[in-house]
Amino acid sequence: MQRIPTQNLRTPGPTPIPDDIVEAMSNPMINHRGPEFLELLNRVTEQLKQVFMTTNDLYVLTSSGTGALEASVVNTLSPGDKVLSATAGAFGDRFTDIAEAYGAEVQRLQFEWGATVDAEDIRKCLRQDPQIKAVLVTHNETSTGITHPLADVASVVKGEFDKLLLVDAVSSLACVPLPVDGWNCDLVGTASQKGFMIPPGLAFISISEAGHEAQASATMPRFYFDLAEAQSYLERGQTPWTPAVSALYGLSLALGKLLGEGLENVYERHTKIAQMTREGIKNLGLELLAQDETYASDTVTAIKIPENIDGAKFVGMMRTEENVVLAGGQGKLTGRIFRIGHMGAVTASNIEEVMEAIKLVLPKVGFSAR
Amino acid sequence: MQRIPTQNLRTPGPTPIPDDIVEAMSNPMINHRGPEFLELLNRVTEQLKQVFMTTNDLYVLTSSGTGALEASVVNTLSPGDKVLSATAGAFGDRFTDIAEAYGAEVQRLQFEWGATVDAEDIRKCLRQDPQIKAVLVTHNETSTGITHPLADVASVVKGEFDKLLLVDAVSSLACVPLPVDGWNCDLVGTASQKGFMIPPGLAFISISEAGHEAQASATMPRFYFDLAEAQSYLERGQTPWTPAVSALYGLSLALGKLLGEGLENVYERHTKIAQMTREGIKNLGLELLAQDETYASDTVTAIKIPENIDGAKFVGMMRTEENVVLAGGQGKLTGRIFRIGHMGAVTASNIEEVMEAIKLVLPKVGFSAR
Repeated sequence: MQRIPTQNLRTPGPTPIPDDIVEAMSNPMINHRGPEFLELLNRVTEQLKQVFMTTNDLYVLTSSGTGALEASVVNTLSPGDKVLSATAGAFGDRFTDIAEAYGAEVQRLQFEWGATVDAEDIRKCLRQDPQIKAVLVTHNETSTGITHPLADVASVVKGEFDKLLLVDAVSSLACVPLPVDGWNCDLVGTASQKGFMIPPGLAFISISEAGHEAQASATMPRFYFDLAEAQSYLERGQTPWTPAVSALYGLSLALGKLLGEGLENVYERHTKIAQMTREGIKNLGLELLAQDETYASDTVTAIKIPENIDGAKFVGMMRTEENVVLAGGQGKLTGRIFRIGHMGAVTASNIEEVMEAIKLVLPKVGFSAR
Repeated sequence: MQRIPTQNLRTPGPTPIPDDIVEAMSNPMINHRGPEFLELLNRVTEQLKQVFMTTNDLYVLTSSGTGALEASVVNTLSPGDKVLSATAGAFGDRFTDIAEAYGAEVQRLQFEWGATVDAEDIRKCLRQDPQIKAVLVTHNETSTGITHPLADVASVVKGEFDKLLLVDAVSSLACVPLPVDGWNCDLVGTASQKGFMIPPGLAFISISEAGHEAQASATMPRFYFDLAEAQSYLERGQTPWTPAVSALYGLSLALGKLLGEGLENVYERHTKIAQMTREGIKNLGLELLAQDETYASDTVTAIKIPENIDGAKFVGMMRTEENVVLAGGQGKLTGRIFRIGHMGAVTASNIEEVMEAIKLVLPKVGFSAR
């Protein structure tokens, strides 16, 4: 196949892969039931626990992040279980849909797209219905560029009510602080193609002691995503099904880089580049979707498309004329926002290029950038 | 990470990746919702249909082959459905387990490990119980090195009884003939890391019209592996969840190579190398597990470990002393056989090296090779 030209890929995942990680992934294939793989899996599992800031059990799955979310649901719940799902975007909705698909009785606690979920509302729901067994929440809502107040939510769900807390951390982990043990999150699922700087194809999930207790009685059917199988094979340094070995090579290097840099520095780097992005956008006369900048995401920025501007045309011209790949809106925000991803391997000059390109393209679609 | 030395990797998957495919996979990341990906997914889907010899719908999943098997079950069956599962090895058992995990009422038709499943016995079962809705069968049983008579099975299941036929083609497709339409197979699942010569992480599944009819009333819960979602997104040139993009780059090239070589030539190449393997083994005074060589697999050869020989020690020394990576036995064959994979990118000299190495190592574990 023809070589694909490098773009300024600013979608909120997949994110660009650093050259040394691409190189690591080119290592020759190995036996996934042999000693080299055992060493690799054990190493990345321990490194992942450091990035998750947890001593919980943790498994590597060969799937997208959605697979990890499905795993968190089907391994801890039974059909008919009452579940509270707090959602304010497409990924909160997806998490809700998974629980419903497997027969949970889901109370959908809907918040405005562009706002955060509210811990006080979650408290009210849990107070009203003591039968609720678990709460589902998205840490960072990729579709709206909002980071939800997970610490507050966890303090209500775990500290006050001691319910099971299932977290979608796909676009937050390894980018913004998520101390899994510190916040007492029971199941936390994330994926490879965002903060971890490797291609899509792997997902990671941690499970607490309370999660294991729920697992023991959970009757939702499961096979590919059965975490008991993952545990049993991990004890032999293996995965139950053939894993994405090449991606694991990349992951091993990526985790070494993240831990070498220091998680605090990784978080600070994401905060700085996000602030730079938001400032750039405002300087262009554009408006953030986030109603309050304090909860604007440090991994993806959602920007309102100005009145009378064709958002699809704008995103298309950014790609074809300026080689900058942005994301449009999802679901009910289609055509109303565009999004700039700034997680994983991203530099200040990547963002400067985006701003320069927006400045050139916006007038061509009828908006006068400042 | 340190560079992994290249081995003579003769496990029955993952198989070695040709250099040009490794190179293709190093292409930069792209937006999985953009035009480049649309073009890539549409192209590989059409190429895959040619390799499957089908005009059926076909989907690319990000999972191991087990995920495709789960997809074939949960998209076509309902809890309580009667299913006949013909099994003669670890992978036939796994397919059976999947159907049971999701609540099918499974009749397990067990054949000896090392023999084939028998179409006549399947006929008897279908005659005895007209309530059986579907038959599960493994085309090539990787754990025993046996290719089952799928054409005969299909002729009974489809031709005589018109039941749903679900096929595990993980270690057969792209290596030995499997004309999906010619044999009228309803759901056929396979994976990337064997005949397709790319790393593990992708699975492929085709579904017939009868499969779609079953899908319309199937109530097993599903989300990640929901083929209706796959269909809906494929119509936009996308996958529902973020796909393993890098593996798809490799797949595109691999499919071009397979179709360029011609499927008949690919099959003939596998037959020749398999015959060479079996001859070599017999010349060393070793015995095949296959009770009848006519159904010995052309993708993996299972060899009995001679009496009083420590099989694990033998396989270990082959790796540490001769750089040849074999597979041991699985399940009830652990310690009783070893296996040589010869599918995908494998040359005659790879097999010659294996034979030379066996000749050197066997005496060290107490067996006098001829």
